[in-house]
Amino acid sequence: MTTGTRADSSIVEVRLTPVAFVEPPLRNSAGVHGTTVARLVIEVHTAGGAVGLGETFGDPAVLAVAREAARRLPGGDVFDLVELARILDVDPLVDGQPDVVTAAEVREPGTFAGTTRVKAYSAFEVAFLDAQGRLLDRPVHQLLGGRVRSEVDFCGYLFFKFGAHPGEPEDEWGEVLDPAAMVGLAQRFVADYGFGSLKLKGGVLDPVAEVETLERLAAAFPGVALRIDPNAAWTVPTSLDVARKTDGLVQYLEDPTAGLTGMAHVASATSTPLATNMVVTSFRQIRRCVELGSAGIILADHHFWGGLRATQQLGAVCAALGLRLSMHSNSHLGISLAAMVQAAAVLPGLDYSCDTHYPWTVEDVVDAPVIKEGRIAVGDAPGLGVTLDRDQLARMHERWLRDGERPRDDVAAMRRHVPGWVDRRPRW
Amino acid sequence: MTTGTRADSSIVEVRLTPVAFVEPPLRNSAGVHGTTVARLVIEVHTAGGAVGLGETFGDPAVLAVAREAARRLPGGDVFDLVELARILDVDPLVDGQPDVVTAAEVREPGTFAGTTRVKAYSAFEVAFLDAQGRLLDRPVHQLLGGRVRSEVDFCGYLFFKFGAHPGEPEDEWGEVLDPAAMVGLAQRFVADYGFGSLKLKGGVLDPVAEVETLERLAAAFPGVALRIDPNAAWTVPTSLDVARKTDGLVQYLEDPTAGLTGMAHVASATSTPLATNMVVTSFRQIRRCVELGSAGIILADHHFWGGLRATQQLGAVCAALGLRLSMHSNSHLGISLAAMVQAAAVLPGLDYSCDTHYPWTVEDVVDAPVIKEGRIAVGDAPGLGVTLDRDQLARMHERWLRDGERPRDDVAAMRRHVPGWVDRRPRW
Repeated sequence: MTTGTRADSSIVEVRLTPVAFVEPPLRNSAGVHGTTVARLVIEVHTAGGAVGLGETFGDPAVLAVAREAARRLPGGDVFDLVELARILDVDPLVDGQPDVVTAAEVREPGTFAGTTRVKAYSAFEVAFLDAQGRLLDRPVHQLLGGRVRSEVDFCGYLFFKFGAHPGEPEDEWGEVLDPAAMVGLAQRFVADYGFGSLKLKGGVLDPVAEVETLERLAAAFPGVALRIDPNAAWTVPTSLDVARKTDGLVQYLEDPTAGLTGMAHVASATSTPLATNMVVTSFRQIRRCVELGSAGIILADHHFWGGLRATQQLGAVCAALGLRLSMHSNSHLGISLAAMVQAAAVLPGLDYSCDTHYPWTVEDVVDAPVIKEGRIAVGDAPGLGVTLDRDQLARMHERWLRDGERPRDDVAAMRRHVPGWVDRRPRW
Repeated sequence: MTTGTRADSSIVEVRLTPVAFVEPPLRNSAGVHGTTVARLVIEVHTAGGAVGLGETFGDPAVLAVAREAARRLPGGDVFDLVELARILDVDPLVDGQPDVVTAAEVREPGTFAGTTRVKAYSAFEVAFLDAQGRLLDRPVHQLLGGRVRSEVDFCGYLFFKFGAHPGEPEDEWGEVLDPAAMVGLAQRFVADYGFGSLKLKGGVLDPVAEVETLERLAAAFPGVALRIDPNAAWTVPTSLDVARKTDGLVQYLEDPTAGLTGMAHVASATSTPLATNMVVTSFRQIRRCVELGSAGIILADHHFWGGLRATQQLGAVCAALGLRLSMHSNSHLGISLAAMVQAAAVLPGLDYSCDTHYPWTVEDVVDAPVIKEGRIAVGDAPGLGVTLDRDQLARMHERWLRDGERPRDDVAAMRRHVPGWVDRRPRW
């Protein structure tokens, strides 16, 4: 009864190409994005000729783990995700952010030392699945059980920003550091991409100004869903004050304050749903979140949760526990965008539009899927459906070589704008 | 970069063949197994020539759901599990056994009205995955992310039994209705299959006699893990009395008493782990089980939980919540055995050997995998790795036609042995 022909799925080569792409000076509660972002592009070449692509953080710690894995993978098989996990010494259900996170472990929002191996694994898993899909001539979502939606909603991710990096000319978006300028930026985002929802990266201005920003956005975009994410920049009382003032204005508050307990205090005193990608970014943290009632909405992110399959499992866990799902984003390129679309395509419980930094990404290594009317269509092209542009890859790798290998440091970048800047949370 | 050739995975025909197979008069707390068991064999034929097999309960309610689905499936695609769920109107994360089960809904152990559509869906899902594997020339476990073990441990499932069905000659096992006879049966099971663990179906004799049986088994088989499942035949005090007497003797007590609350009472007063396939057989019930502390071990069963993928998701939920996993069985044929092996192969958190009724199955419709040294090897044959024997299928379908379409009724079967028998739980 067997009729298929099995393409050779054994791994003949793994190529790692760190790249750097330019990014505007986007503000957050920790500081500001630097001039470039490092990402790692993974290619997994199979004997059958198919090449799978993956993308993840370009931090030195992730690179070190990925390099070790890349040496050991040739001779393996892109269908053997268990062996991949063994080589990377990762169990997505166990690893990732630990139950208790010390202040020292928190460098940038959502970034923890314990997640390094998971961040590397997730990109290889995506590359393996992409290769599987190309070998089988089927989209990744089919290998994950089939898409539950034909389009994925994305959210316009609004950042306060400086007009330029120090010593550089003003970028195309200019300075956005007050409520009026933010409405202008949102108008451009909505005009260019048709977003039906907007997320404000908060924790940058005084909460009074950020509430005013939300009010102005609501007035300018009736019917557009709003959310705000101050990355734990607020105390519990400030969070409750903002919750009171934005009651009915926002669909959720994301990480208003720090810690499972702090979030639980806020959640218990407001009817506004709380979302998180800071206090719950691993399976180990979910039970305590439910017990404390810290957040009702978990932000999925395949980079943090251990790949596309683990993200599906997160969906099952959330469904079983009555939690809802949204999706988190860091600065990323088109491979990750394509992977986010595949993840969102198969997540039944995804109740909110997905975050993405992609509108801020002005150069890429692939032909990324396009956001139209706030959505990306879930295609049927094999694998992830994106193709590598080797000229771009080489060019962006050159920039990475010039920049040198270094971790993301929003605080140091901020000190170039504001000497003596200290990352202090809660700030308000 | 695409190199695969895509075999045609569209569905051209779905064949449903109800079959009946003979079974010995196995006792349980409800009554006794009747002369035959009805099962439904599902064949999903694809345009590419691959045929996927599935097996589930043969109850009239399941047959009705399956027949309706079989009419609607041709023209669909075996990779579209989302459409399959839509046609069957099933969401494994939501459906299945409800939070609160009334006494009237409990007919036989582990069988509830609300699970009918899930039971049908799960068999189609297995058939779809089998067809996928055959089209792709890959084992099902590879489509599920890869096996975490190369062998699956099974447990010798010991039943007290009558020597014969009423009016029939004694079967090959003879009467087993006291502790000494049970040791004899266990010796045969261990000799024939090499089981390293034994499960006693309890709730049949007085608990004193069942404890004695466990003591004799422990003496006769040092180092062999023991467990007992009285299907909620005991009160809370009786359960605690048994727990005390079997402390250190059994690896777990399975469903000693009824209900999440009753189980929680028992669990709180003993260090023996409790397992269940009665109070938690759907995702909706897990949270309350954790809150109450009703059981620490969930028995997976792809028939109840909505297929192999849902069983993987159950594994993720249990891992996130600190629950452990074992595997449940009803009377079944080799297609289900092969599917259970695939499920077990990909479940990282499967901490115990799997139950199976298969040693009691003396005829089959496929070349089922073989239990040796208590284990079944996880093969690499395409799909489930079993082939349909059409002569056997026809013969067993003839028997089903002679038997007539009827639900399983262990109580009625028991009344043929013991007139006036009443299914009374708790009995002790």
